Amino acid sequence: MVGGGQLARMSSQAAIGLGLSLRVLSDRPEDSAALVAARTTTGPVDDLAALRAFAAECDVVTFDHELVPPAHLVALEAEGHVLRPGPRTQRFAQDKAHQRAVLGALGIPVPLNRLVGSVDELAMFGDELGWPVVLKAVTGGYDGRGVWVFDDPRNAAHLFASGREFLVETFLPLDRELAVLVARRPDGESVVYPVVESVQVDGMCREVIYPAPISSEVAEHARGLALNVAAAVDAVGVIACELFLVGEHVLLNEIAVRPHNSGHFTIEGCVTSQFENHIRAVLDWPLGVTTPTAPAAVMVNVVGGSTGADPVANLSAALAVPGAHIHLYGKEARPGRKLGHVTALGDDVTETRARARRAAEILTGEQLPL
Amino acid sequence: MVGGGQLARMSSQAAIGLGLSLRVLSDRPEDSAALVAARTTTGPVDDLAALRAFAAECDVVTFDHELVPPAHLVALEAEGHVLRPGPRTQRFAQDKAHQRAVLGALGIPVPLNRLVGSVDELAMFGDELGWPVVLKAVTGGYDGRGVWVFDDPRNAAHLFASGREFLVETFLPLDRELAVLVARRPDGESVVYPVVESVQVDGMCREVIYPAPISSEVAEHARGLALNVAAAVDAVGVIACELFLVGEHVLLNEIAVRPHNSGHFTIEGCVTSQFENHIRAVLDWPLGVTTPTAPAAVMVNVVGGSTGADPVANLSAALAVPGAHIHLYGKEARPGRKLGHVTALGDDVTETRARARRAAEILTGEQLPL
Repeated sequence: MVGGGQLARMSSQAAIGLGLSLRVLSDRPEDSAALVAARTTTGPVDDLAALRAFAAECDVVTFDHELVPPAHLVALEAEGHVLRPGPRTQRFAQDKAHQRAVLGALGIPVPLNRLVGSVDELAMFGDELGWPVVLKAVTGGYDGRGVWVFDDPRNAAHLFASGREFLVETFLPLDRELAVLVARRPDGESVVYPVVESVQVDGMCREVIYPAPISSEVAEHARGLALNVAAAVDAVGVIACELFLVGEHVLLNEIAVRPHNSGHFTIEGCVTSQFENHIRAVLDWPLGVTTPTAPAAVMVNVVGGSTGADPVANLSAALAVPGAHIHLYGKEARPGRKLGHVTALGDDVTETRARARRAAEILTGEQLPL
Repeated sequence: MVGGGQLARMSSQAAIGLGLSLRVLSDRPEDSAALVAARTTTGPVDDLAALRAFAAECDVVTFDHELVPPAHLVALEAEGHVLRPGPRTQRFAQDKAHQRAVLGALGIPVPLNRLVGSVDELAMFGDELGWPVVLKAVTGGYDGRGVWVFDDPRNAAHLFASGREFLVETFLPLDRELAVLVARRPDGESVVYPVVESVQVDGMCREVIYPAPISSEVAEHARGLALNVAAAVDAVGVIACELFLVGEHVLLNEIAVRPHNSGHFTIEGCVTSQFENHIRAVLDWPLGVTTPTAPAAVMVNVVGGSTGADPVANLSAALAVPGAHIHLYGKEARPGRKLGHVTALGDDVTETRARARRAAEILTGEQLPL
């Protein structure tokens, strides 16, 4: 796995059960996965020589993120390395304009959007389709970075100063944000996870709630949509579809072609976790059952608070919350950084959510923002 | 954790979730835990200097087995290292005569037993209490090694030739073997796991079945007995009590003062696994809930078959069994060696057991012995 973040850390944990020792290529020895994986190589994940040397030791190369330069992915694949997902699939997550154009043309519902390179083009879009609008960096955004909302095109002038193009989209009156994970093998065999609600604050996922408070019709529609997206991008491994719910309409917001924050609840909350199924999928092994293990599951992210306090100091206190499954990532505490998560399972979603939140609040020593 | 076997491997997996990097002292680099733990020291676990150097890097030292020489444990503790469990507790698992004498005197029901050093003494015990009898090595036996059944004392003559003493016990008409795990903190706070049936073949645990097919009265009695044993030996961490059921009577067979094969089902089958609770207990953190996650859970060991075939070759096929949680230990395949286990959860114990057995049989390529 290229990249040593918490996704690689939790993938490594899942790999142990399958009798594997996941190799990790990590930027720094203090990265989350590098702290726990026995076979870590330290090296820059944007350097072709480092990637090539790492790939030479692997049967299959998979990824903790979508930050490897596309040209490197193409070069590695051309040299015969097995990349799962491959460059064509990763491009859908790396290049939002490509994703919108291709998936929209295939009939996947996406917000109305356009590539714009100037304040005038932005103004034209907003005047035509209404204000405010959402402006997105075509590449590199995550956790709310690279996304802006404007109700006046002049406020975006500084962004266009560099000459870059951005994706502009209509600002939708969202009822909820949803997420659906699919795990998919190279031959297309797929399993789809239950639909969850993703509670976002400032564009960052803070809580994930199963079951999502939606009708079974909407849930089945969302699952079907995610399966269609997985097939359309030729996903191998886990793909996460972040969805907008507007009334009864489901639209695709973002995709990630790797395990995803919206799937951390699956470690305890589904028979087979997203991390195990990612590994099974990229190794072309039969996929595991995705059935929920409890009527309700809630995941709350442990995000570094404003004081920079380390949740490790509060771990013992948080473990006293009954049935709180605490996951800490070993990362240095910094404000706004994802340092861990808590999952609780239960019969009732309100009680379960309260329990997960309580443990997360003890860990950070701060109240959750919502 | 001293010792690099599968218990350390699975403890390491649990430690990752808690934000820890478990240090492992392992005899050989190819040991099960050494293959996956980032911070492994290779060194002989019966060498005091190696133990001392390892302990100096640890806040708390715990153990994958009970094979560290008692004098070394005493020396390390005297030097100020924190051993959990400590030498007095480990002695109960290391010295069966000590265990029988102390626990029997405390009123814990154990089989009638006596230390014997000759064929004549053995004959006296059998003539007095009935044949056959069970002869046990006082130290070092496990998985059926170091245990013999004799119906004629002359057949044991070769064992006494060395001048060693053995424990002789009455041969009980067992209805079942049961097991109960307790996790216990240094201050005595304890949690007890559900009672399971342990299906043994030639003295080796092959299957573990929850719920054990016993009355709730017997189950509660067994759990109370295990809590008493844990307190009597001043356990810290997980302690496993292997029990005999004779009619409605529950007797203590063996104890292990560490995570145990009879508790592997807790990884998926209980809210908090034995491995996580072992770590929480030895670090003096609040213990996790032990409630079962499903009405039925069955664990089947993957034991190396007569051909020496490696179950890794059959992993992909076995993963096709729905809901089979497969754990492989990365160990070299040898006949009779524990190479992994499979756990299945379900609503019905018969169906669940059949599913776990099917996956285990696919892995070994052989039928299970029972």
